[in-house]
Amino acid sequence: MTTFVEQKNDLLLRAARGEPVERTPVWMMRQAGRYLPEYRAIRAGLDFLTLCKTPELAVEVSLQPYRIIGVDAVIMFSDILIPVEAMGQEVRLTEQKGPELPDPIRTRSQVDKLRVPDPVESVPFVMEIIRTLKRELDGRVPLIGFAGAPWTLAAYMIEGGGSKSYSEIKRLMYKEPAMIHSLLDKIADTIILYLNAQIEAGAEIVQLFDSWAGELSPRDYEQFALPYEQKVLGSIDRRRAPAILFINGVGTLLEKMETSGADVLSIDWRVPLGDARRRTGGRVTLQGNLDPCVLLSTPELIASSAAKLIAEGGGSRHILNLGHGILPSTPVENARAFVDAAKGGGGSSQ
Amino acid sequence: MTTFVEQKNDLLLRAARGEPVERTPVWMMRQAGRYLPEYRAIRAGLDFLTLCKTPELAVEVSLQPYRIIGVDAVIMFSDILIPVEAMGQEVRLTEQKGPELPDPIRTRSQVDKLRVPDPVESVPFVMEIIRTLKRELDGRVPLIGFAGAPWTLAAYMIEGGGSKSYSEIKRLMYKEPAMIHSLLDKIADTIILYLNAQIEAGAEIVQLFDSWAGELSPRDYEQFALPYEQKVLGSIDRRRAPAILFINGVGTLLEKMETSGADVLSIDWRVPLGDARRRTGGRVTLQGNLDPCVLLSTPELIASSAAKLIAEGGGSRHILNLGHGILPSTPVENARAFVDAAKGGGGSSQ
Repeated sequence: MTTFVEQKNDLLLRAARGEPVERTPVWMMRQAGRYLPEYRAIRAGLDFLTLCKTPELAVEVSLQPYRIIGVDAVIMFSDILIPVEAMGQEVRLTEQKGPELPDPIRTRSQVDKLRVPDPVESVPFVMEIIRTLKRELDGRVPLIGFAGAPWTLAAYMIEGGGSKSYSEIKRLMYKEPAMIHSLLDKIADTIILYLNAQIEAGAEIVQLFDSWAGELSPRDYEQFALPYEQKVLGSIDRRRAPAILFINGVGTLLEKMETSGADVLSIDWRVPLGDARRRTGGRVTLQGNLDPCVLLSTPELIASSAAKLIAEGGGSRHILNLGHGILPSTPVENARAFVDAAKGGGGSSQ
Repeated sequence: MTTFVEQKNDLLLRAARGEPVERTPVWMMRQAGRYLPEYRAIRAGLDFLTLCKTPELAVEVSLQPYRIIGVDAVIMFSDILIPVEAMGQEVRLTEQKGPELPDPIRTRSQVDKLRVPDPVESVPFVMEIIRTLKRELDGRVPLIGFAGAPWTLAAYMIEGGGSKSYSEIKRLMYKEPAMIHSLLDKIADTIILYLNAQIEAGAEIVQLFDSWAGELSPRDYEQFALPYEQKVLGSIDRRRAPAILFINGVGTLLEKMETSGADVLSIDWRVPLGDARRRTGGRVTLQGNLDPCVLLSTPELIASSAAKLIAEGGGSRHILNLGHGILPSTPVENARAFVDAAKGGGGSSQ
């Protein structure tokens, strides 16, 4: 009987840092989620927020896509609104309806009442999830921590949930910019502590989700989103963990997004990867960017689409991912076909 | 007592055709809508679809923004799903919840059953609205007709209403492209007849709404949206009516959008107008593109934002408009401030 020393897979970290890689690493946003029957089995009879706050179960669902699909990285299972609740605003999370914040922020006094919480005290379960994952993974693949970016979190906090037009936060941005800047700054301080605590607990790379910043005009992005991305990314321990920044709908913002200082820009499917490479001068790693809806098609089309992306990515400074989160209706074999495309079609090896 | 001969205002038509104008013309998408108390008074106790189908009332609400705010053009009051109903698919319209199509198209046999209706027979009320508006306006300002573009209408028909991810139409696009092309082609034929009937009835310019084409990757846009925009725009009577094409989220599509053949490209607020001008080489007229949320701020900020846009527009080949429809929560005085900015701050003259 031969004993193999298990290969440590740090492709994601090397790609993020712009170092040479043998192949393009791959993972999927929302990879721990409803498309997996094993996830749905755990969620049955359990509400979303309870799952986020039960380390044993959150660890289990975080590991599922690694075990079942063979992704090159594990992202901790959590929600971007966890630190918002810790700041003192009530958050209700139902996966079907999306987040609901029944007492949305609209006034200066509400902003003033928000805390900048110590994450170790206020959300100890997050740190426990990360420490446990780190121990379980034992370096086999990198562990990703994450947080929402200030503009995106402020949008949820002010709109009271998801939004089509983001009219409440924008109305306040235009009418009461000082109040909004005060809120954004408080969120930035919270997220800096939160991500540094994640890195301290064992996260080896972090992703900052400014998912809705793509709703802003370039001028508004420069005033209300970018400075806080820069503040967060400039204040977390980047020597220990490189940082990925995600924006959905980044079409006209990409050049400005690059000045955020992120190591990796995660972009949506509406920007061709080759154009993105050219527009960012090859100075950053790009993550993405298949339309998640392609994963609803056939393994063959997924394989050829992913292969095209990998070719466009040029074999370095590219992390294969979707342009947004994987959809709950995605067949598992299709998710696997996507991951296998990066791994050379070699099955879901671990 | 002096008698003035009333000035005919054809600024919009001249700007659309690239002819010289004394000042930038202005109108607003969804200008006949809920932000006007006079509109809400007519809607009270009346459902949206009934209003669309009652020419006397539809004419009245079409004229309201011209009388009350002083816009430079009147757009007929209707809904882009009116011809979809005429094709044989049930449509329920409630302004609050958005459109609902209870029997969404998912199969080839459903596509085959759809009609390409004669608009004069199937939606005579639309032609009556246009004829009446034309008579009432008597050339004082241009009359705008409109229709949804094939991809956007297909999205509603397949999703069964609005959508966040457009996953059903995209799934079918990828898995059954022939069926989707067949549907798109049938819609294109319907819209060609529909817009030509509007032009025949008196519409002097038409706007094609491909509102959700911005959800497509450039490659998918080229396959599933652009060819049908080209087909429609190439088959309607352009000698009698120039054409505007609107897409929301046009960031990475603008150069391709220009090849649609539209006289005017109506763009959202995420593309700076100066960049759009440069990217289209000054060959087309641009329409837009203030974030509708700016109209929730103050008359002063609206005036300065509109003035900036007018300056960026360069005084020709520009139609001032919003980047998407005006929001129902917009104060009337703010809508007026936007229009007045184009008219030199001179009140809501008619």
